Amino acid sequence: MRLLYCGDVVGRSGRDVVLERMPEIRERLGIDFAVVNGENSASGFGITEKICAAFYETGTDCIVLGNHSFDQKDIVSYMETDKRLIRPANYPEGTPGRGAAVFKTRAGKTIMVIQVMGRVFMDPLEDPFAAVDRLLATGRLGQKYDFILVDIHGEATSEKMAMGHFCDGRVSAVVGSHSHVPTADAQILPGGTAYQTDAGMCGDYNSVIGMDKEEPIRRFTRKIPGGRFTPALGDATLCGIFVETDDATGLATRVAPVRLGGRLAECWPDV
Amino acid sequence: MRLLYCGDVVGRSGRDVVLERMPEIRERLGIDFAVVNGENSASGFGITEKICAAFYETGTDCIVLGNHSFDQKDIVSYMETDKRLIRPANYPEGTPGRGAAVFKTRAGKTIMVIQVMGRVFMDPLEDPFAAVDRLLATGRLGQKYDFILVDIHGEATSEKMAMGHFCDGRVSAVVGSHSHVPTADAQILPGGTAYQTDAGMCGDYNSVIGMDKEEPIRRFTRKIPGGRFTPALGDATLCGIFVETDDATGLATRVAPVRLGGRLAECWPDV
Amino acid sequence: MRLLYCGDVVGRSGRDVVLERMPEIRERLGIDFAVVNGENSASGFGITEKICAAFYETGTDCIVLGNHSFDQKDIVSYMETDKRLIRPANYPEGTPGRGAAVFKTRAGKTIMVIQVMGRVFMDPLEDPFAAVDRLLATGRLGQKYDFILVDIHGEATSEKMAMGHFCDGRVSAVVGSHSHVPTADAQILPGGTAYQTDAGMCGDYNSVIGMDKEEPIRRFTRKIPGGRFTPALGDATLCGIFVETDDATGLATRVAPVRLGGRLAECWPDV
Amino acid sequence: MRLLYCGDVVGRSGRDVVLERMPEIRERLGIDFAVVNGENSASGFGITEKICAAFYETGTDCIVLGNHSFDQKDIVSYMETDKRLIRPANYPEGTPGRGAAVFKTRAGKTIMVIQVMGRVFMDPLEDPFAAVDRLLATGRLGQKYDFILVDIHGEATSEKMAMGHFCDGRVSAVVGSHSHVPTADAQILPGGTAYQTDAGMCGDYNSVIGMDKEEPIRRFTRKIPGGRFTPALGDATLCGIFVETDDATGLATRVAPVRLGGRLAECWPDV
Ligand SMILES: [Fe+2]
Ligand SMILES: [Fe+2]
Ligand SMILES: [Fe+2]
Ligand SMILES: [Fe+2]
Ligand SMILES: [Fe+2]
Ligand SMILES: [Fe+2]
Ligand SMILES: [Fe+2]
Ligand SMILES: [Fe+2]
Repeated sequence: MRLLYCGDVVGRSGRDVVLERMPEIRERLGIDFAVVNGENSASGFGITEKICAAFYETGTDCIVLGNHSFDQKDIVSYMETDKRLIRPANYPEGTPGRGAAVFKTRAGKTIMVIQVMGRVFMDPLEDPFAAVDRLLATGRLGQKYDFILVDIHGEATSEKMAMGHFCDGRVSAVVGSHSHVPTADAQILPGGTAYQTDAGMCGDYNSVIGMDKEEPIRRFTRKIPGGRFTPALGDATLCGIFVETDDATGLATRVAPVRLGGRLAECWPDV
Repeated sequence: MRLLYCGDVVGRSGRDVVLERMPEIRERLGIDFAVVNGENSASGFGITEKICAAFYETGTDCIVLGNHSFDQKDIVSYMETDKRLIRPANYPEGTPGRGAAVFKTRAGKTIMVIQVMGRVFMDPLEDPFAAVDRLLATGRLGQKYDFILVDIHGEATSEKMAMGHFCDGRVSAVVGSHSHVPTADAQILPGGTAYQTDAGMCGDYNSVIGMDKEEPIRRFTRKIPGGRFTPALGDATLCGIFVETDDATGLATRVAPVRLGGRLAECWPDV
Repeated sequence: MRLLYCGDVVGRSGRDVVLERMPEIRERLGIDFAVVNGENSASGFGITEKICAAFYETGTDCIVLGNHSFDQKDIVSYMETDKRLIRPANYPEGTPGRGAAVFKTRAGKTIMVIQVMGRVFMDPLEDPFAAVDRLLATGRLGQKYDFILVDIHGEATSEKMAMGHFCDGRVSAVVGSHSHVPTADAQILPGGTAYQTDAGMCGDYNSVIGMDKEEPIRRFTRKIPGGRFTPALGDATLCGIFVETDDATGLATRVAPVRLGGRLAECWPDV
Repeated sequence: MRLLYCGDVVGRSGRDVVLERMPEIRERLGIDFAVVNGENSASGFGITEKICAAFYETGTDCIVLGNHSFDQKDIVSYMETDKRLIRPANYPEGTPGRGAAVFKTRAGKTIMVIQVMGRVFMDPLEDPFAAVDRLLATGRLGQKYDFILVDIHGEATSEKMAMGHFCDGRVSAVVGSHSHVPTADAQILPGGTAYQTDAGMCGDYNSVIGMDKEEPIRRFTRKIPGGRFTPALGDATLCGIFVETDDATGLATRVAPVRLGGRLAECWPDV
């Protein structure tokens, strides 16, 4: 089975590159299931129902979020109605929406997508490791599930690598998000789980993590609140991760970065 | 001019890969100047005089450090005597050692190496942006200096990207360190400065940021202090950045990752 | 019913003042139940079996801890055997020891002592508010319990005040610990719960939070690791909180600070 | 010489208690110089020119701020014109306003007021210890200055106590602010400097650090952004610190809390 994960989509230019290129990527790489991180797709802060619809229409099967899940006011009620939209599973009990979802692909495969949020240098949610354990107790990879994806939305590389090894052999892939910079450490861990510390953002890399650079630089140097953060508007790079699994075991046989457009070096997996 | 920067060397396996491969890399890529981040080279914590000597003997021209600069007791006095060893420039006034150094290459070129430490999610040092400004006031790129390298040792991708743009057009390259994971965002910024958010570590990637994975996973899941952190001992990957500059301007004409050995995909720049 | 809570005991001088003065305080104030925070009693870091025994012998009924609960190696196994020793309830499931305990006083009253740890500026444990809710679901104040004490061990005053109001009317008292400085905000909240943001430490106030001041000042100004933290050895001030409740409702009728010895102004509640 | 320092004034109810009671306090305690922390006086966030005027009219000689210094847009230009208004001295060079000011009292005494901001758990500014040292180099206590006041606006009790000892013998008083809870640790340090870790807020203590309690509790328990923070509107307690010095040396002879109104126990120094 072949999965594509696209990292945090930032603002209009990030949306544009994902909406335009998704059909081509699906076709060229023979993607069975595509996941997009949409937590920054609405002007950098959260997501709207309309943006969700646009992603679904162009080939996205599942949208994940992160610490910006609830930035847009109307999303709370919408989230209850959209079963393909996932926020971190380790929000407190009673939080609107869901932290994992199970899908059937067109080819009849069963995939569980899980998102958890890291706690190092971030808002303290519930234990992401315990949350993953509880969700993995619902069924085994290679038996109930043909593919299990864990998105660890976090700041610290240590916590993300620990999550990779914690899940190794039990899930198909652990991918990181939130840092808005793709990492070059794609590997299959010893137990058979595909891993990359961060997918990177789908956004303009002539920026500060996708935002127009002037205001962030001003805040770092002047320390006085001032203007607002707005997404950078230059051509975006789509940054994603391609994972291929063995149908019998659900474990990974390949993991490779995908990078298209914008300022970063183009990168297509050989298929 | 051609420069190689090798990311944080972690423990024995990290040292081994750097000491063994450095001569080959210098030869193959025609390196004029090689910088190594040694802040984790002594069992993961700091560096010793003996390790410095080993790096210098095998082709390293300059060693930079980071938040672990002073982990080894004897380094404080040694640091005063070694002008090729650099710790972050934004330590408080009166801190032993130096935060920048100027070198002459064999070909007679002048290079300034600067290290600063980020402050987001890290110990609060002095302003790294102001520190860079003060050091850049000592002379211009393309005039006094043929190459200026800025190493931003930091946690947050936002602060590192802000530093890149802050220096853009004024230095040859801004490279990040500290996260122990290489990023895949090498680019030449609009003003001509080479940039990569993090060089990654030279260490065993079957680990948690270079450390044997058992203890970090235990701490993330159990929250009780216990065993010690020790470097992972498997084959290390050397992770570096190659930068080539225009001799007239000192600005970058090329930036590309270097990855050799261990678990990550091998990567050589075309030269 | 009358309860005494003594804040974080730091090192030998902190132990001395508590062991010496406890009998006198119990007598003079007619204390029914005495709780001591022992998380820094063993040279500033954790507690030992021997120190627990000394507290119990001199009139302490219950010992609570905090983020330093597990600093001493042998405490993990001992904790399983001592039902009067409590560590924060919001450690992950499976953590040795207990986060709450129920006691019978000599007069036949039932008291539940709960400790939780804050998460703002601290290691991220499970949700302290949810943990308190679960424990309060075991029985009602004024019915099953004659007294319920909640110790919120935390850094941020906002989180501690929020916990006070969250529990208001449902417990007899919410007291804070961890900051090592007594606060002067003792009050009975609108719902009848006694509240004080921090009890303060039992330790030498000619110090930096109980530690000999030289090394902490050195670290704040020089930013290089160096010497060790050791408890200050001057005369300690016992800092505690006195709470009196209505026997019918379990709600507070009085809350007042207790301060004895050392450098701070002496303070005895009128009884 | 007798000085009064009033802690962070929060919103309308905080302003009311300070404006109403200041003349009475000055009279009763024979205050020579009154300082008010106004960083939360404008609806909890920053201060305005109009509020400054009201404080000055009712007996305030100097206003200090903190991390909320620049929350109100128009304050930046106003700050340049008001020499009695002080923001932390360790903002970066070039920040509008000033970090210290020298005043003549009606009786002809010279007083220097310094504010610095802590860096532990706060935005990283320049070194507050070095900033104090630079300002103290302008003249000696007991010679050029009859009184030197240092306000350390910070979160961590350790950093504030370290600042106290760092200044001990060189200034008349070190008072803390920012936590919005008064501490009960007023003392004269061994070298003769008056010290209290936090003055507490002038605000409604039936609140979460002065804010209406509903929204903060919701955020702690639900972790979803939602409503806005607004100041609590109940009767406020004025929380201040009274310091008396020896006219010959400028060192402290007395330090005592002042608490008036609202929910906390009233407290007047004996004079
Ligand atoms: Fe994001
Ligand atoms: Fe995020
Ligand atoms: Fe490192
Ligand atoms: Fe580091
Ligand atoms: Fe403590
Ligand atoms: Fe503590
Ligand atoms: Fe404040
Ligand atoms: Fe503040």
